Amino acid sequence: MSQADPAAGTTGDNPQPEQPSKNALKKAQKEKEKAEKKAAAKARELAERAKKDAADGTDVSADAYGELPLCGSTDFKPTGTPRADLAQIAENEDKEITFRCWVENARVQSAKLAFLNLRQGLSTVQAVVAASEKLSKQMVKYCGSVSTESTLVVSGLVKRVQEPIKSASIKDFEIHVQKLHVEVKADVPLPLQVEDAERPLPNDTAAEDDQKQEEGGERPLVSLNTRLNNRTLDLRAKINQSIFVIKSGVCALFQEFLSKKGFVLVHTPKILGAASEGGANVFELKYFDRPAYLAQSPQFYKQMLIASRFQKVMEIGPVFRAENSNTARHLTEFTGLDLEMEFQENYHEVMGVLEDLMLFIFGELNARYKKETDLVRGVYHINEFKLPESGKVPRIPFKEGIAMLREAGEELGDYDDLTTPQEKRLGRLVLEKYNTDFYTLDQFPLAIRPAYTMPSPADPLLSNSYDMFMRGQEICSGAQRIHDSTLLASQMRKHDPPIDPESAGTKDYVECFRYGCPPHAGGGFGLERIVQFWLGLPNIRMCSLFPRDPQRVVP
Amino acid sequence: MSQADPAAGTTGDNPQPEQPSKNALKKAQKEKEKAEKKAAAKARELAERAKKDAADGTDVSADAYGELPLCGSTDFKPTGTPRADLAQIAENEDKEITFRCWVENARVQSAKLAFLNLRQGLSTVQAVVAASEKLSKQMVKYCGSVSTESTLVVSGLVKRVQEPIKSASIKDFEIHVQKLHVEVKADVPLPLQVEDAERPLPNDTAAEDDQKQEEGGERPLVSLNTRLNNRTLDLRAKINQSIFVIKSGVCALFQEFLSKKGFVLVHTPKILGAASEGGANVFELKYFDRPAYLAQSPQFYKQMLIASRFQKVMEIGPVFRAENSNTARHLTEFTGLDLEMEFQENYHEVMGVLEDLMLFIFGELNARYKKETDLVRGVYHINEFKLPESGKVPRIPFKEGIAMLREAGEELGDYDDLTTPQEKRLGRLVLEKYNTDFYTLDQFPLAIRPAYTMPSPADPLLSNSYDMFMRGQEICSGAQRIHDSTLLASQMRKHDPPIDPESAGTKDYVECFRYGCPPHAGGGFGLERIVQFWLGLPNIRMCSLFPRDPQRVVP
Repeated sequence: MSQADPAAGTTGDNPQPEQPSKNALKKAQKEKEKAEKKAAAKARELAERAKKDAADGTDVSADAYGELPLCGSTDFKPTGTPRADLAQIAENEDKEITFRCWVENARVQSAKLAFLNLRQGLSTVQAVVAASEKLSKQMVKYCGSVSTESTLVVSGLVKRVQEPIKSASIKDFEIHVQKLHVEVKADVPLPLQVEDAERPLPNDTAAEDDQKQEEGGERPLVSLNTRLNNRTLDLRAKINQSIFVIKSGVCALFQEFLSKKGFVLVHTPKILGAASEGGANVFELKYFDRPAYLAQSPQFYKQMLIASRFQKVMEIGPVFRAENSNTARHLTEFTGLDLEMEFQENYHEVMGVLEDLMLFIFGELNARYKKETDLVRGVYHINEFKLPESGKVPRIPFKEGIAMLREAGEELGDYDDLTTPQEKRLGRLVLEKYNTDFYTLDQFPLAIRPAYTMPSPADPLLSNSYDMFMRGQEICSGAQRIHDSTLLASQMRKHDPPIDPESAGTKDYVECFRYGCPPHAGGGFGLERIVQFWLGLPNIRMCSLFPRDPQRVVP
Repeated sequence: MSQADPAAGTTGDNPQPEQPSKNALKKAQKEKEKAEKKAAAKARELAERAKKDAADGTDVSADAYGELPLCGSTDFKPTGTPRADLAQIAENEDKEITFRCWVENARVQSAKLAFLNLRQGLSTVQAVVAASEKLSKQMVKYCGSVSTESTLVVSGLVKRVQEPIKSASIKDFEIHVQKLHVEVKADVPLPLQVEDAERPLPNDTAAEDDQKQEEGGERPLVSLNTRLNNRTLDLRAKINQSIFVIKSGVCALFQEFLSKKGFVLVHTPKILGAASEGGANVFELKYFDRPAYLAQSPQFYKQMLIASRFQKVMEIGPVFRAENSNTARHLTEFTGLDLEMEFQENYHEVMGVLEDLMLFIFGELNARYKKETDLVRGVYHINEFKLPESGKVPRIPFKEGIAMLREAGEELGDYDDLTTPQEKRLGRLVLEKYNTDFYTLDQFPLAIRPAYTMPSPADPLLSNSYDMFMRGQEICSGAQRIHDSTLLASQMRKHDPPIDPESAGTKDYVECFRYGCPPHAGGGFGLERIVQFWLGLPNIRMCSLFPRDPQRVVP
């Protein structure tokens, strides 16, 4: 439900922003490519020379470096050597370790000395290859020539350094290399430099500031399109690794909290025999000899499960929307975090669960994913996400939201829907008044909600429905649902546009409320939106591994 | 991957088995309907009479029973009375409790006495409504007339009984009713009786035995089709509630085990711009102005994430197969439990993780879901699932499996694929020899595996691939994957049928292995199959809330 937002197109959010000067960028791009080609040729030359030298037979390190055979399809015998985790390097001071890593960069300082920046997970470490009686100059040359992004197996001594190392995340230790083998070589040149993927997107306010601050700032910022076209390289960036570790974390926390409350994880069908919920914005597919449709949400099914006496259900699954919305906050396929539960007397019981759920997720993200959060927010210079100090989430009646906006000069009617700019403005007003980036609007106008929404006892033009917001943007839409089939059918017929309760897509749904379904409410969150607004990212595509929008279905 | 099984059609498994005698069943069905209609008319009559009596104004219990107004859309004020959980009833002996429940059945014993069987979750309790100075005869009549499956709010005293109650799961206590309100009334008659859904499917060996044993065994067993057509009622059966609590548990355990090992939960796209993996058995959809396809597995994407340096990934998501297989173990949409990870030296590292994962899941199912497991297996009289006593999962080379089958009289070649009957037979042989229902086959013939499978170093006609089995049926297929783009492209071209590595559906995938992807392996489990074989259920549809097969896309 969380993506339905007819007004979003009016914000002018653009997923592929125009470059400030195309010619300047083109020129810079060409220069970059030229430099990379030159570097690649140089690297090849060095590697060949090193090999030649080694072949002379005068190499004391002949067995300590080179390329390993393809792992798995050869008779290569496992060594059984344990592999070290660089995150635990401090425990190995002055010890020899063996570890897999990949090359951020390699440079030959002199005939006797090469340096490599090596990465493993979010850790980077400096490695020194120094010629000695036991380590040949040929090996130094070879190590300096290894191509960026190649996967290595390295053995060496962990040594404490005097001066903190600036260029690596591990500041106090370096590796004195004894052996270095290329396990899987990366091609040269790469279509995208991973270090470019670490920088912000262009044409964003935060991004521009960054660009000015950065050393070597002439390198152009790489567009989102180029990054997504080379997504497997792009995702290697620490910022991207962090985003998806956080996304994984949100799912785990969602389930952790709700499991403890007795929710059952369910999987409802994504292939439907008939378009439901009015039939707009739905993808059609060929199902053997007939048409079928992709589920726009698990709405009908999660309610049918409440009718089936599953008292509390949750689902994490893909949601498909055939909306031609090309904005920074819409996807055609996203991950829905859905829940539905029966309540005893009042739908506010369910709102309480939703609010506690989100406070738990935010609290644990701060506790368990601080490193990743700081890393991402550092690139975009985003403010911390403010939570209500009292621990009580402001639950603002829609009417009061309208009043706040009017007081601030907006013109809108009592039962009008909010536009995206109005939502964002309300977010700023709430932040000022309540000092929180997270809050709920309650009692929305009935006319702007789906037909299955329970009308309000207080005002027949309102409904028992709510949205939740982060930084002024909607992340969740929910409501008490009608659990009486007669009222539901009548509301469907009265709805604009009307829905036929007897149609193939709604019949089973409407009928299930004839058999004693308890009162229930629920909500649907957009997972990518939670991650986007938590981190303050400029585009939702950054929160989808392989995003889908009207223009993009690859890779 | 776990569903690909070209030979499965040959087993003659039939999801909609023929009834032994259609006429007998039809007759019984008609009689059943007649009886139900009669009962419904009787109930209506009773309810009306009770109401009329109440209207006479001589009713001391007038406020203690009746229908509640529709919860939510009226000005009904919440009472704030806490609602009791029947699972904790023993803690409330001699106390008054209020609880929501639904009616399994209600019967008037005399003008002064009515009994109801009430259910909440997996608990059922007997409630007694006895006329007294404080409780009117009118109320007794009303309580006895409440329709089956209606949702109630009941208040009463928890009383210990002398004789254990046979008809309820709570044997030692009953409720002495003080108030009883119908919160949501169920229609009469129901299209499916929930008690019928508690019984086994017809035409299964186990089911036939059951039918003979049961009292009142003339009632015909209800076909799977009828059950699925009325799935929201069918799912109310305790056996079904238990199946889906277990299914939810398997997902939770899968994530619990792998999270601790550092796996990141990912969500790969289900909409693909081009058909991948050869293009067979794929659903096509209309994606704005072009065709797109539903993912048959997350295979390519989970590997691309390993190439993106996510060292260990897992996914739980829908998998779509346009296979026209009408068997008891195929669905067109099922839930895939997928994982992929880099390994250091040998793909057996990954097999170890998979085996430990499944042993953890089985062990915890026994520990945490014993009640649900026993309940389901009790209906189908299925043997316990045997696990290796040593804790070591037999890892049988494919060659050895062939030898075992030959010794048992099967005729098949060294590199032939196993048919489903052969797999089942091997399952029995392994059970005899190793005393376990769970085991792995390793080193499958290369020709019968996907093109991306790493060939074996031991024999070029074999591969570093494996399947896992439960009760002789495949639940997981996995392998070391080729992590070198040149070898991968060449294997794709040589494959039968050949795959073009430059085609739109494979290009991004093949190219991602040009940038230093580490060696990796993984596997894909079919969630519904794990649940089906764990419980020993006759049909996989029983393990999908709303199953999809070539004939069924509703409800």
